[in-house]
Amino acid sequence: MPSDDFVFGTLGTEELRIRHVRALHAGVTHRFARRPRDPLPGQPVTLELAVGPAQPCEWAWVYWSVDGQDPQGRGGIARHGNATSMEPVEVQWDMLEWGYLRRFRATLPGQPAGTVVRYYLAAGTEDGIEIPADHGAFDAYYVADDPTPQWAYDAVVYQIFVDRFHPGAGRHWLKPATLAGFCGGTLRGVTENLEHIASLGANTIWLTPIFPSPSHHGYDATDYFEIEPRLGDKQDMRQLLDAAHARGLRVLLDFVVNHCSDHHTTFQQAIHDPASPYVDWYRFNQYPDEYETFFGVKDHPQINLRHVPARQHLLDAAAYWLKLGVDGYRLDYAIGPTHDFWADFRRVTRSVKPDCWTFGEVVEPSDSQVSFHGLLDGCLDFILLEGIRQTFAFQRWDCRRFASFLERHESYFPPDFTRPSFLDNHDMNRFLWVVQGDKTLLKLAALCQFSLAGPPVIYYGTEVGLSQERDTRQDGRGLPEESRLPMLWGDAQNAELLAFYRDLVALRNRKASLRRGACQTLFVDESAIAYARQVPGERTATAINLAETPRPISLPGEWHAIRLATQSGCTLQQQAGSTWVALPARTGAIVEG
Amino acid sequence: MPSDDFVFGTLGTEELRIRHVRALHAGVTHRFARRPRDPLPGQPVTLELAVGPAQPCEWAWVYWSVDGQDPQGRGGIARHGNATSMEPVEVQWDMLEWGYLRRFRATLPGQPAGTVVRYYLAAGTEDGIEIPADHGAFDAYYVADDPTPQWAYDAVVYQIFVDRFHPGAGRHWLKPATLAGFCGGTLRGVTENLEHIASLGANTIWLTPIFPSPSHHGYDATDYFEIEPRLGDKQDMRQLLDAAHARGLRVLLDFVVNHCSDHHTTFQQAIHDPASPYVDWYRFNQYPDEYETFFGVKDHPQINLRHVPARQHLLDAAAYWLKLGVDGYRLDYAIGPTHDFWADFRRVTRSVKPDCWTFGEVVEPSDSQVSFHGLLDGCLDFILLEGIRQTFAFQRWDCRRFASFLERHESYFPPDFTRPSFLDNHDMNRFLWVVQGDKTLLKLAALCQFSLAGPPVIYYGTEVGLSQERDTRQDGRGLPEESRLPMLWGDAQNAELLAFYRDLVALRNRKASLRRGACQTLFVDESAIAYARQVPGERTATAINLAETPRPISLPGEWHAIRLATQSGCTLQQQAGSTWVALPARTGAIVEG
Repeated sequence: MPSDDFVFGTLGTEELRIRHVRALHAGVTHRFARRPRDPLPGQPVTLELAVGPAQPCEWAWVYWSVDGQDPQGRGGIARHGNATSMEPVEVQWDMLEWGYLRRFRATLPGQPAGTVVRYYLAAGTEDGIEIPADHGAFDAYYVADDPTPQWAYDAVVYQIFVDRFHPGAGRHWLKPATLAGFCGGTLRGVTENLEHIASLGANTIWLTPIFPSPSHHGYDATDYFEIEPRLGDKQDMRQLLDAAHARGLRVLLDFVVNHCSDHHTTFQQAIHDPASPYVDWYRFNQYPDEYETFFGVKDHPQINLRHVPARQHLLDAAAYWLKLGVDGYRLDYAIGPTHDFWADFRRVTRSVKPDCWTFGEVVEPSDSQVSFHGLLDGCLDFILLEGIRQTFAFQRWDCRRFASFLERHESYFPPDFTRPSFLDNHDMNRFLWVVQGDKTLLKLAALCQFSLAGPPVIYYGTEVGLSQERDTRQDGRGLPEESRLPMLWGDAQNAELLAFYRDLVALRNRKASLRRGACQTLFVDESAIAYARQVPGERTATAINLAETPRPISLPGEWHAIRLATQSGCTLQQQAGSTWVALPARTGAIVEG
Repeated sequence: MPSDDFVFGTLGTEELRIRHVRALHAGVTHRFARRPRDPLPGQPVTLELAVGPAQPCEWAWVYWSVDGQDPQGRGGIARHGNATSMEPVEVQWDMLEWGYLRRFRATLPGQPAGTVVRYYLAAGTEDGIEIPADHGAFDAYYVADDPTPQWAYDAVVYQIFVDRFHPGAGRHWLKPATLAGFCGGTLRGVTENLEHIASLGANTIWLTPIFPSPSHHGYDATDYFEIEPRLGDKQDMRQLLDAAHARGLRVLLDFVVNHCSDHHTTFQQAIHDPASPYVDWYRFNQYPDEYETFFGVKDHPQINLRHVPARQHLLDAAAYWLKLGVDGYRLDYAIGPTHDFWADFRRVTRSVKPDCWTFGEVVEPSDSQVSFHGLLDGCLDFILLEGIRQTFAFQRWDCRRFASFLERHESYFPPDFTRPSFLDNHDMNRFLWVVQGDKTLLKLAALCQFSLAGPPVIYYGTEVGLSQERDTRQDGRGLPEESRLPMLWGDAQNAELLAFYRDLVALRNRKASLRRGACQTLFVDESAIAYARQVPGERTATAINLAETPRPISLPGEWHAIRLATQSGCTLQQQAGSTWVALPARTGAIVEG
């Protein structure tokens, strides 16, 4: 049996969730409580602070600056920047901390476009003790009228794990001893096979990391300005960008700012020379052996992004690739760096390329994801992924619950916060493997994915039936590489599935209502769901029958024709002002209105 | 060692608290989310509903009535009363339930004075399933301009456990085999010893239950209209009321509506005759052996207060004793009956005696207590009790934390919600026993109690040094009767402690600022605290030094004289516009400004 779920990072168990909730109420906590999250020029911003029962602080201040330097202050008096006193606004009883939580609020004045407002909050006691919020984390927001690029709403993204996509003409796959070895995919292999992507109808490519790195996945760079030689060189990258753009395909890079490889020159210098300026690029608890890492992995030292030269280096790299023609970034582990890094990142990336698209990988629930509004253009939709798997793969949620989830999920997020949707990726079991090869379920899940608002992401191979051989979690170990088998080409591809995917992508590309329409549930019961989406002059309905028996589903009003179905036998009937979609067992269809 | 704490009922452990928090977000939950809680005539009332992630309900309704009958309805259509559609207003991510919580809101129109608005909320799915809020509990509120009686703010309450106060002239204490037996206190014993209470300065008496009952405590009545013969008869009660009123003492009864004794006639008839109308007065799960009880105690069957005749019986009893001259009620286990009972109770008690004072025993935190605002005049302040014990008895909280707690506690509650304060009662270890006889700590705690807003309650004997012999919790069993030893009389009383209490009560009675003043922290550090309270033309400051060394405490401005100190040696000095109270180790004083 496949492991039935992927893991929500640091919130994977009930115990961790309880600890998280308690931590939010225990100390002096701001945690991005900021309105509006995406301030326009001149718009005031309100900040909130919560002070837990065990913190006897009845005073609070915001220290803030607008000149790029960190604010400093104490006791309500600024040493750099400004200090604003916070007003006590509310007292709540907190059941888990068993005591009163005191909330404070302050409003900072509006700022001109292009300003990064840096700030931190602190609470103080009557007799002069001062406790910084969030254990001293700095925060920031970026003031601008720079909306999410329009093309992001229309994107269909194809995710390429570069080492596993194609070795390039005249080269063959390598045969590593384990899947953690190199398989030999290259940038040229991508460039030469853009036709597959374009004919699929995708209009955006996301390349997993291409910077020099000792690993097959590349999520640990040794240089942020070069290309990993195994994958190619800058000339190859130039050609890939040109060829992609010539076909109307945009290209996103995968960018990791939280940590790098321990082989990075700066880290090597830092640990071998205590006098090196690079020592400050990292966080040593005990020099040189003990340092902050990504989840305890010694090979992945965390970069000290509070240190200005280190931060600038990463910002320069982001600007560099955008100038070279890249169209945006998928930002790995975006919850790692503090918001004050992302405010700078936004300022830099938007000034180099005003229509770049940036979205984060935040493997946390919606409340954490939405905190990036105004800093990133969105986040990968892990919560929708869970909902789709619960409903289509595990069938633990009935359709009522899924419909209700969709309504709440849509209304939770601001409309300009893009949430790329996906059925699987390189860090979890492939959907097809989870459903034990049942392509019917994959097609139903994809039908749903492509009829919702989030720009859909196709993980390479999913569209041609690529699966895996073993679980990504075995004996307590994570083996994500199990879901990174080499791409299937030629006859190895499942032609029927590919044809379905092509039709599905084509329909989405043709129908603005599928990409941008407001969603409304038309029908739902235990095992069937139908929802409509519409834009002026166009509407579509998606009807899905998960039952093991055929079902007629009623759509209010007149609907004209089935435009796509997961299999044959789906039919439409008009009857007394209502329309009936007759769906065989486990089928779905998209209907034009 | 004494057990170090009393138990917060069903919320005594972290596990229970987590369960409670989760239950609030799991289902379809209203739980008294009502604003304002105490509506004036004509004032609209807003109700809120939360629908948890697992409840796929995207519709909600309020069913309500104003004619005394229960509202009824389905699918948004009223069968009795009115139905109002609720508006979806907010979606939140709930970390513990791991999903979206949907909130709904509706506003009901204002009503004339004297109206009881009965209601229940329900949420529904797209396909017609309807789930009532709070597992089907009915709710209600009472519309009136009937403020808390003025005398309640000035009350100093003396709590008498009747069987343990005085046997009356010419009679002696009984010697029961255990403390759960009868000791022989009587109403005449109370009447004959009013002088003790009056000379202490108390102006209100709270009698523990006096209705017929098989137990020594009386919290399980067999008749709500009679007097327990062991304690006396109606004539004795009449005399007690007259004598008390003649001395300016008001009298409160302890009233238990949640459950009665299994010897109550109605219950006996109910279990012996299935055709009896009294069967409906109780809730049988399996007749006649399985029925709802007070925490599983078979002797204490729960009364079905939703059954109109049973409810009316209890309301008639409440009216009966008020008409006989009683001044109000301490309401045992007020969290047991639903709010729709208390709305009726308010209507009945206020119409019989407009200035009666009613307060609840709600052994739950502040969020639960405050839900009674508008139904009762207040609740016994269990949360303050905990704060006082943490600070003065266990010294687990330093003074900073206590000061912060006091500020938040005060601002949490509406000012007209009276919170009778106490150091101990008949259900927990006596304070003096907890501090192992240390009268210094008792005096400091009492000084604090009497300088805060809540009407102070003195549990009989605390003022004369009555303690106990054994812990109220032993081998996992509760033995509350350990704290119910017979009252000390004559030379057995601690004269010095009594003198202190008399001075303390007298000062509170003399100083309106102590009873009604707004509180402000003047000074706090780890081991000392000072706060002022003031009304126009008068102010007082309370300064307490919990350190083991003498300390001068600075009070801003000019303060004139120490009016009361827990021991000699406390002095006052003026110095450059500031006043210093010099406090020896572990002392406190009340200063006049």
